[in-house]
Amino acid sequence: MVRRETKIMQTIEQCKEKYEHYKASGLKLDMSRGKPAVDQLDLSRALLSLPGQDDGCLLENGVDCRNYGLPAGLPAMRALFAEILGVQPENVIAGGNSSLNMMFDTVAQAFSKGICGGRPWCGEKVKFLCPAPGYDRHFGITEYFGIEMINIPIGADGPDMDIVERYVENDASVKGIWCVPKYSNPTGITYSDETVRRFARLKPKADDFRIFWDNSYVLHDISNTPDTLLNLYDEAEKCGNADIVFLFTSTSKITFPGAGVACVAASPKNVEWLLSRIQYQTIGPDKLNQLRHLRMLPDLEAVRAQMARHRAIIQPKFEMVLSAFEDGLKGLSGVSWTKPNGGYFISLDLPRGCASRAVALAKEAGLVLTPAGATFPYGRDPEDANIRVAPTYPSLPELEKALELMICCVRLALNKIEFSDSVNFGQRLQKYQIPT
Amino acid sequence: MVRRETKIMQTIEQCKEKYEHYKASGLKLDMSRGKPAVDQLDLSRALLSLPGQDDGCLLENGVDCRNYGLPAGLPAMRALFAEILGVQPENVIAGGNSSLNMMFDTVAQAFSKGICGGRPWCGEKVKFLCPAPGYDRHFGITEYFGIEMINIPIGADGPDMDIVERYVENDASVKGIWCVPKYSNPTGITYSDETVRRFARLKPKADDFRIFWDNSYVLHDISNTPDTLLNLYDEAEKCGNADIVFLFTSTSKITFPGAGVACVAASPKNVEWLLSRIQYQTIGPDKLNQLRHLRMLPDLEAVRAQMARHRAIIQPKFEMVLSAFEDGLKGLSGVSWTKPNGGYFISLDLPRGCASRAVALAKEAGLVLTPAGATFPYGRDPEDANIRVAPTYPSLPELEKALELMICCVRLALNKIEFSDSVNFGQRLQKYQIPT
Repeated sequence: MVRRETKIMQTIEQCKEKYEHYKASGLKLDMSRGKPAVDQLDLSRALLSLPGQDDGCLLENGVDCRNYGLPAGLPAMRALFAEILGVQPENVIAGGNSSLNMMFDTVAQAFSKGICGGRPWCGEKVKFLCPAPGYDRHFGITEYFGIEMINIPIGADGPDMDIVERYVENDASVKGIWCVPKYSNPTGITYSDETVRRFARLKPKADDFRIFWDNSYVLHDISNTPDTLLNLYDEAEKCGNADIVFLFTSTSKITFPGAGVACVAASPKNVEWLLSRIQYQTIGPDKLNQLRHLRMLPDLEAVRAQMARHRAIIQPKFEMVLSAFEDGLKGLSGVSWTKPNGGYFISLDLPRGCASRAVALAKEAGLVLTPAGATFPYGRDPEDANIRVAPTYPSLPELEKALELMICCVRLALNKIEFSDSVNFGQRLQKYQIPT
Repeated sequence: MVRRETKIMQTIEQCKEKYEHYKASGLKLDMSRGKPAVDQLDLSRALLSLPGQDDGCLLENGVDCRNYGLPAGLPAMRALFAEILGVQPENVIAGGNSSLNMMFDTVAQAFSKGICGGRPWCGEKVKFLCPAPGYDRHFGITEYFGIEMINIPIGADGPDMDIVERYVENDASVKGIWCVPKYSNPTGITYSDETVRRFARLKPKADDFRIFWDNSYVLHDISNTPDTLLNLYDEAEKCGNADIVFLFTSTSKITFPGAGVACVAASPKNVEWLLSRIQYQTIGPDKLNQLRHLRMLPDLEAVRAQMARHRAIIQPKFEMVLSAFEDGLKGLSGVSWTKPNGGYFISLDLPRGCASRAVALAKEAGLVLTPAGATFPYGRDPEDANIRVAPTYPSLPELEKALELMICCVRLALNKIEFSDSVNFGQRLQKYQIPT
């Protein structure tokens, strides 16, 4: 437990004074994205000289990882991801550096060719269910392809499955749903066993309906009481439903964001379908980066040890946020936040109409938060209530400042105190913008 | 100049005897793809431990290459590619490990969204011009998207520009053309200055017509008298035509195939269009692999020195092929081959109807060549005449054997000598298959 040295001010006057102080101080902090901090990146320093000049880069079957080939990735990389996701190696395609890219390409493939013999989505009316608040970049993909997005409420157990079932089982234009089932972005909740079972049992009206199960935070615990997620693939297989699932994950937050290895996992039929595009798209993924990762993290045990080192860095930051909110926001009407056991985010809910105001105030004082609304389809939070808090990137001293300022901004937004002409309080994000 | 120790046999009887000898010997050689040999891969061994654990991985502006960001790639990587391609850094997007993937994605973007405000190609009648013989994987992309491919004859100066102009300037459904302008795959020719100028001057009927200029072999000389290629982008810009050009290249045959860095370069308007997709598709390319490359090859001079080392390995192989063909095939009616100054291929033309037969005979005896027909759209060589010879991957002793066998196969195919029940001489490839 980290002790914060400054106490959160209690009166609005104090908030205002503090806010103006920060604004004058030329603060420059960015908490807009779920980015690992520098000391987390340092945990993977070994990768920078791997596989090493003495490494033959050869597989047992004689394949030279330095040359062309293997569109589904290195067998050992597929096996490691299989263990992480709880599937078989032949279910896994190990790809490039971005699971987002694999999700995008999967939707693009459905768009241009249809899924497993189904009609191409281009020219069709296609809808996706979007548990919200959710991951802005998921919503960006479906928006890019002109897919209609439907907000689905998400609670402590996951998406509202009554609503999900009603849509999926009655509307043939509903072709997919975006899910971050463990330590959900941004609420940090993990889907309950019953939620997962209801996903597995879905009887979609559309043959080409798919669950996009983005298990980004599968090993990303920050607590002694980590959440457990039921294995959707197993459950779906039991119901003869394995084909409705696409699983995704990556090492972006295990090793280096943007220089890790990503994968998609699915049923044999879906894997065959995915490879039917990949074989035209590329001669193969970067096998040397896969080999590099395997040299540093040869098995699940090594990955778990790495995650424990991440946790040691992240956990105090989450504790600092929760403690600051406890001190500065507790008891305020309509204000609540999540207390996740893992992942990268805490979700802060304010009374209706306050989120964009608080974010704008923060920006004005030099603290960039995730744009209000970004966690909803089309960048529009119907309540303008949700703020995604991403505590990992700043150092602890920076985070402490950021939290003090953030709490000022929230309290000022709640009290509608005007104190600066240049902040347009009523402003709502008109257009969905992908933050850089 | 490498001396071959065995003399090519002169009579058909000798060919037949030699062929049966090879067939019985359990030979296993693969010359199907333009793959660098092991000693070429060894030239980039330094990459295996770069950037190194002491490298801060920081850019001048403070960006940490280990973290997320920079969707257009590292500025220094963009600058290096710009120098290689003869454009400005802001024209370049440095991406992942595969220029094929960038070409595929560019077509996919046109298919789903249209080019620069044009109509999406999905649902439209779209045609591409395909100088043939050409690169099978180009044709694979257009076939994947259901784009009609039109064969364009290619000669010593490049594609037949009379035909190209007629199509491009009169048919609004012609949206693109595939070009490998330098050391063309597979003929090895380089487009003449006049050909490049005629490309630059094209007045396409379709606003969204684009030249896909795949400059894979831009620095890949194997001769003291290398070819020079006029700068298409400059020429097009002079005509106010810069927007009709997409340039592609990669380090696949400079460093490691499949673990290099690829790029696309284009006009500001086109770059903006490309990034409008990329920003939804990924948070950024693998910047560490770009940094790794920059540490080993910081500037064009270093790249040229690397290419000289490649040349020292490749040139004797090309000389061996040309010398073997000279000895074994010269004077045979209807048989000719190219003598490239660079690139990865020699193109061998046989009399009509002989190519698939020769390739099948070779396969029967353990030598895998590029499937006959693969160098034409839909895998169909209208003449069944062209064989792509890829001499780089085998060692010199292996290549010597392969050539002796290949010449036997060609001569037997020409003479229609039957000698094995299991070879179906008349067989034509029915379906276009992407070789693994």
